[in-house]
Amino acid sequence: MTTTAVNQLMEQGQAAQAAARKLARLSTRIKNQALQNIAKYLETEQSQVLSANAQDYRAAQAGGMEPAMLDRLLLNPEQLAVMAKDVRSIAALPDPVGEALEMTTLPNGLRTGKVRVPLGVIGSIYESRPNVTVDIAALCLKSGNACLLRGGKESLRSNLALAQLIRRAIAEAGVPVDAVQFVDNPDRSLVETMLGMKEYINLLIPRGGAGLIKFVAENAAMPVVTGGVGVCHTFVDRTADLNMAANIVFNAKVQRPTVCNALDTVLIHSQAAPEGLPGIAERLLKAGVELHCDHRSLSILGPKVGPKVVPATEEDWGKEFLALIAAVKVVDSLDEALQHIDTYGSGHSEAIVTEDYSAAMRFLNEVDAAAVYVNASTRFTDGSQFGLGAEVGISTQKFHARGPMGLRELTSYKWIVMGSGQVRE
Amino acid sequence: MTTTAVNQLMEQGQAAQAAARKLARLSTRIKNQALQNIAKYLETEQSQVLSANAQDYRAAQAGGMEPAMLDRLLLNPEQLAVMAKDVRSIAALPDPVGEALEMTTLPNGLRTGKVRVPLGVIGSIYESRPNVTVDIAALCLKSGNACLLRGGKESLRSNLALAQLIRRAIAEAGVPVDAVQFVDNPDRSLVETMLGMKEYINLLIPRGGAGLIKFVAENAAMPVVTGGVGVCHTFVDRTADLNMAANIVFNAKVQRPTVCNALDTVLIHSQAAPEGLPGIAERLLKAGVELHCDHRSLSILGPKVGPKVVPATEEDWGKEFLALIAAVKVVDSLDEALQHIDTYGSGHSEAIVTEDYSAAMRFLNEVDAAAVYVNASTRFTDGSQFGLGAEVGISTQKFHARGPMGLRELTSYKWIVMGSGQVRE
Repeated sequence: MTTTAVNQLMEQGQAAQAAARKLARLSTRIKNQALQNIAKYLETEQSQVLSANAQDYRAAQAGGMEPAMLDRLLLNPEQLAVMAKDVRSIAALPDPVGEALEMTTLPNGLRTGKVRVPLGVIGSIYESRPNVTVDIAALCLKSGNACLLRGGKESLRSNLALAQLIRRAIAEAGVPVDAVQFVDNPDRSLVETMLGMKEYINLLIPRGGAGLIKFVAENAAMPVVTGGVGVCHTFVDRTADLNMAANIVFNAKVQRPTVCNALDTVLIHSQAAPEGLPGIAERLLKAGVELHCDHRSLSILGPKVGPKVVPATEEDWGKEFLALIAAVKVVDSLDEALQHIDTYGSGHSEAIVTEDYSAAMRFLNEVDAAAVYVNASTRFTDGSQFGLGAEVGISTQKFHARGPMGLRELTSYKWIVMGSGQVRE
Repeated sequence: MTTTAVNQLMEQGQAAQAAARKLARLSTRIKNQALQNIAKYLETEQSQVLSANAQDYRAAQAGGMEPAMLDRLLLNPEQLAVMAKDVRSIAALPDPVGEALEMTTLPNGLRTGKVRVPLGVIGSIYESRPNVTVDIAALCLKSGNACLLRGGKESLRSNLALAQLIRRAIAEAGVPVDAVQFVDNPDRSLVETMLGMKEYINLLIPRGGAGLIKFVAENAAMPVVTGGVGVCHTFVDRTADLNMAANIVFNAKVQRPTVCNALDTVLIHSQAAPEGLPGIAERLLKAGVELHCDHRSLSILGPKVGPKVVPATEEDWGKEFLALIAAVKVVDSLDEALQHIDTYGSGHSEAIVTEDYSAAMRFLNEVDAAAVYVNASTRFTDGSQFGLGAEVGISTQKFHARGPMGLRELTSYKWIVMGSGQVRE
């Protein structure tokens, strides 16, 4: 890492901060025009992005990247069209900036309340998916925040092409071009520089694997929103509707196994397991799911189920599989399920399937997670599913924002006080 | 610092964390009973607290503590009665825990929403005023958080006596006694231990001078809410009602000069200064305020005003005086005032006195501070004045909470989702 590279990053931060001050006061109309321009160019100016992406892809392939990762890296015209559609939905969302909260008139006649304001500059450090560049830039723009983005080395060319497209689009709408900054130097040590830039970055959002998130959380000098790691349980209670349970477990595990709100562990009540577990297992096994079973679930399923059913090890509890693998454990009570979730959960999404009202209420009250479910799939933990329109990530911390982070979660507020000469007694 | 002392502190943290889990689910009734018991003992069991405080006072006096600090340290029966009254007002406030936010039914029939939950364990490191011990413990209790308190060395005996009284009071109400923990070892190096205890402390609130707050913010491993430092300006605009301006400036400076929302600098428009400044200065000078004036205000006030009017130095701008001193500067425009505030303000409380609607709106929009005022004294930036009932401090950061932090600002939330078998398409 050269001093030049560090200085350049610092200058980008400074420019982002200056742009943020202007962006904070831009009208919704101008911000939406910028978003519409981005969407338009994602449809009409694809060639540069696609050819940059093809170069990234070939380089990654030659470097021996595994197929699942290669798949995440690849962009095609349909995906760019989906990205354009997503940007248009962000444009269609209400502008959080300027929203007035808790406005009231105090007994002394002072009119007080809070007004939403942007945070300033959002930094993001993320891994290979290039769509994150567009996602975060669009959410930051709409919420009046500048952004400083640092994507993965493998998608550098794709990200750069996308960032150029975005910068051109916003400049044409009258948004300061420096409101979207991309770190074009892939040197890893610049990540550490970025973590120290607290005078230029107001909030840092890491997106990627557990290692990256932990590193950022431990080393960043500015506030960080951590999340994205989900060790998610579904507890099938004694009184569960077993058909519903099989549907929910199947959906939570199979519908998209590579994401953070996918199921990792099935807990099943010992009184429901003999009747319920075989049906749940059958559907999962048919979809190619490998089951890591404790000894009681193993003995219920019996030896006939084949090579995809293996004994669980201690490491299976609390593991985020991100693949067609599920751990299975029989428990004797709601308390044991709650205890297991408390010990091994990551505070992301946890579900109970039950017909027992008191068990449902206890689960909702006692599980300490960003999203707690009764009789539904954990796959719903998502900004657009929850009606926030879009999300910049899913927070598993309690501070500032928890769960899906939409536009409002990218804002702060200030108190405004309108008086007519009031003084304090 | 001994290993024993560190271990003891760790054990306190662990015990606080365990108590927090129980406290989070206690009913409002039990929490309020605990608060009522504290209030009662503050009235009926004063002797131990007062004799401990007398010992602290004598030791501090012998150690050469300056009178203003000694004054802050001293407790008397009336102050304990005021503390009891404050605790009763906290008991009377609505319980934030369990409050449901944004509950809705999604098109797929899922009922979703957020429910407020406590943050867990609040740590606080503060300087000499012993009433902070009661304040923070009461606010934490009501918001379902345990607390780990570390007060100043000078008030150790007073704080210990108060902590004992609180622990006895809450235990009698059925609240786990370890929900309120006080660090009884005055060794300064334990502060650093505390800053690293992120597995036991969910939020750290430093209260005290700028040095303490900066040290905590820079070294804490857990989230911190910083604040308490207020460099507050009042800008008297060209069109200000000069009588109102004099009242507001007088109140902001004189009503309680030692607090963070007190005025530090008067900015006055050059077109208002010749007529307005002499009257403002006269009232301040009569109250014993020393004026540090730029050369233009100095020449308007003239040489006759006496030794309390001195030329300002560069250090006067951006200084929190916490005393009967005000800096005074003549500016030529709203823009110059905004620029000055932007450069020297601390993002706490800023006011404009004006009859010009557009100037008022620009000031509200453009000043980046926790509280922005038109035609009122900055002294109103306070949890109880703003209708929050009480405050644990005033945040000057944008993350999580800004401005006065009441009970709600000591909470997080979780998403709850109640389904009837929904799965994601």
